[in-house]
Amino acid sequence: MYKPILKKEDYMERIGAMARKAEEKGLDAVLIFANEAEPANVRYFTNYRPIFESTAIVISRSGEAVLLIGPETDELAKDHSVLPDYKKLLEFRESSDPDYPDIKIDTFEDVFTGLNGGNTVSRLGLIGTNIMTVQVYEGILRSLSDAELSKEDDLLRELRMIKSPRELEVLKRAAEIAGKGFEYALERIEPGMTELQAVAHCIAGVYQNGAEGTGFPVWCLSGKGTNQAIGIPTQKVIGKNEVVQISMGVMLEGYVSSFGRPFVFGEISDEIRRMMDTALEANALTHKLLAPGVNASEVASKVHGLVRERGLGDCIVYGPAHGIGMMECEFPFIETTSDIDLQQGMTFAADTYLAGENFGMRFEDTVAITADGEEQYCDYRREVIQL
Amino acid sequence: MYKPILKKEDYMERIGAMARKAEEKGLDAVLIFANEAEPANVRYFTNYRPIFESTAIVISRSGEAVLLIGPETDELAKDHSVLPDYKKLLEFRESSDPDYPDIKIDTFEDVFTGLNGGNTVSRLGLIGTNIMTVQVYEGILRSLSDAELSKEDDLLRELRMIKSPRELEVLKRAAEIAGKGFEYALERIEPGMTELQAVAHCIAGVYQNGAEGTGFPVWCLSGKGTNQAIGIPTQKVIGKNEVVQISMGVMLEGYVSSFGRPFVFGEISDEIRRMMDTALEANALTHKLLAPGVNASEVASKVHGLVRERGLGDCIVYGPAHGIGMMECEFPFIETTSDIDLQQGMTFAADTYLAGENFGMRFEDTVAITADGEEQYCDYRREVIQL
Repeated sequence: MYKPILKKEDYMERIGAMARKAEEKGLDAVLIFANEAEPANVRYFTNYRPIFESTAIVISRSGEAVLLIGPETDELAKDHSVLPDYKKLLEFRESSDPDYPDIKIDTFEDVFTGLNGGNTVSRLGLIGTNIMTVQVYEGILRSLSDAELSKEDDLLRELRMIKSPRELEVLKRAAEIAGKGFEYALERIEPGMTELQAVAHCIAGVYQNGAEGTGFPVWCLSGKGTNQAIGIPTQKVIGKNEVVQISMGVMLEGYVSSFGRPFVFGEISDEIRRMMDTALEANALTHKLLAPGVNASEVASKVHGLVRERGLGDCIVYGPAHGIGMMECEFPFIETTSDIDLQQGMTFAADTYLAGENFGMRFEDTVAITADGEEQYCDYRREVIQL
Repeated sequence: MYKPILKKEDYMERIGAMARKAEEKGLDAVLIFANEAEPANVRYFTNYRPIFESTAIVISRSGEAVLLIGPETDELAKDHSVLPDYKKLLEFRESSDPDYPDIKIDTFEDVFTGLNGGNTVSRLGLIGTNIMTVQVYEGILRSLSDAELSKEDDLLRELRMIKSPRELEVLKRAAEIAGKGFEYALERIEPGMTELQAVAHCIAGVYQNGAEGTGFPVWCLSGKGTNQAIGIPTQKVIGKNEVVQISMGVMLEGYVSSFGRPFVFGEISDEIRRMMDTALEANALTHKLLAPGVNASEVASKVHGLVRERGLGDCIVYGPAHGIGMMECEFPFIETTSDIDLQQGMTFAADTYLAGENFGMRFEDTVAITADGEEQYCDYRREVIQL
């Protein structure tokens, strides 16, 4: 039986840290929203993630924490959440708006009444409004019509940006599973399969090696489709002599690794090889530059400069790296506009994506910033892969 | 190569039908929101679904249609959407809020200016506010500060509720693939595997048989966990003599089937067998009652009555059926409070879920209401399965 690396005290410490941040900001409480596709915000504090429904956690400045769920996931919450308390609100129900004639429902009034020793919530911070639904937002507005609401995403970003040793251990294991899953898939994918059948091998490979899920919907793209920066696999049959791109992430204890490799069955044209060589060179430079104290925008400028020198400047889409943790892509970013210095304990997906008119390709791996450079959590076959 | 059943004209007809509904309601346009976990609203009109980002479609009363996407999915939109036009708005970007220094961005002003022959949008209908994000909502409010906004989900429900012959054909195929995927998995799942490893076989089974995705995150639960009405698989090892529950749906051309079966390795206790027998009896009654002209609440009352007669009234959670189509669970519902008569062309998941303190179980299949009863799209091993 799998023994989790994260402990209940990790979640409790995070709740305490958020309560202190709320107190410092003069907020009575924060409400933090999450959903099925983006569970990180709430799982960070509870280990709970929803399916079909959405969710939130309310943390008061005095350290109280209440998980808010929809009407159908109470048994799931009991089994997964580290918190004993939860409330069931209609606002978090699945989007098809079912009736629940036989289920007892709580309200936002029940949630907000009685926090901080029974005081009124007059200042509420909101986290996750860029995924929060209008119906949840309107429910909050109705129940706290006199309160001052503010967006406080920075409070959670600050907490999540630097990873603890146990978080790093989980992320490393998630990255190793991704590499093993890719190896499993590569032994089975053949020309003549559909992209979707190739995806089946990737998913089977990571689950068989211990993943608790995929960090995002796995894609296999081939030929022209590989110039989708983020893509969805199709019934297209994988051919010879074309770029095949696998991008996948492994979820483990809520943490998500990212892994991307292009490969070709058969002949590699000069045009494809030139982009592969450049992508590998840019990727190697990214890894070399990642170190504490380095400014993120400098990393981006140098890597983009190299790609332009090689004549492929038009193929730069973004990057060359983004934060990774409980989301496959999270703050901070390494872009030419990023104004941040790298610190020990930050984790990144070194993400080299180049795309032209007819094809694109991505080499992507998970790394951590260490005391004097980076630790690579997976480097399986970071090379020209010809099959 | 897979040949889609749905044709471009199907999507165009839907856009036309929605434009007419907007016109009838006195709306200048409707804005319809969707996201990665809930793509149905927008895929219905475009065949496009997002990954990481969210999306919307604006349809004017004069029949113009503009797809709205985030900054990273333009190649995906070009490949998947039936519409030639799209606009890229920051409001639909992924929730980690990346910078896009090198990407040209449109605004809501660009979207709303020039519709209906250049007239101002003064009445806008919103569809999907129960999943629409606050940042999209605020973007709309800013750009249409003088307009009247109204929630118009009913307009889309009416369109989607009755399925066309081609929609029924897609859904039937999706249901058949689910049955085949379950058969594939059942040959491979063994006690000693984790729930997650069992899920890997389910996913591989449906993808190998032609699925374009799963309709919702597949779950395998075992033992106590089976009393989660909607659940998430874990690293728990599957044992003998306990209920194992598989619930999965197949996505095909955006349509989603649903399939659920419980089974047991080894001995089936009297308590488990009693619930299985009752669930099968209630499920059979549900199938018998589904027919055009029948009132939904009567179906629910009769099925719940049967379960209560068998002494398991406390194990009723909801149901006994819910609409299915482009979402695994969509309007209309068959609950004791449902005030709707069944009609030919409606499609349902006949969904018998019973749960007690220690275990639960679900038999679920996709059916269509025909001229004189129902057509079952899959009935693979709807029986006591002992392995």
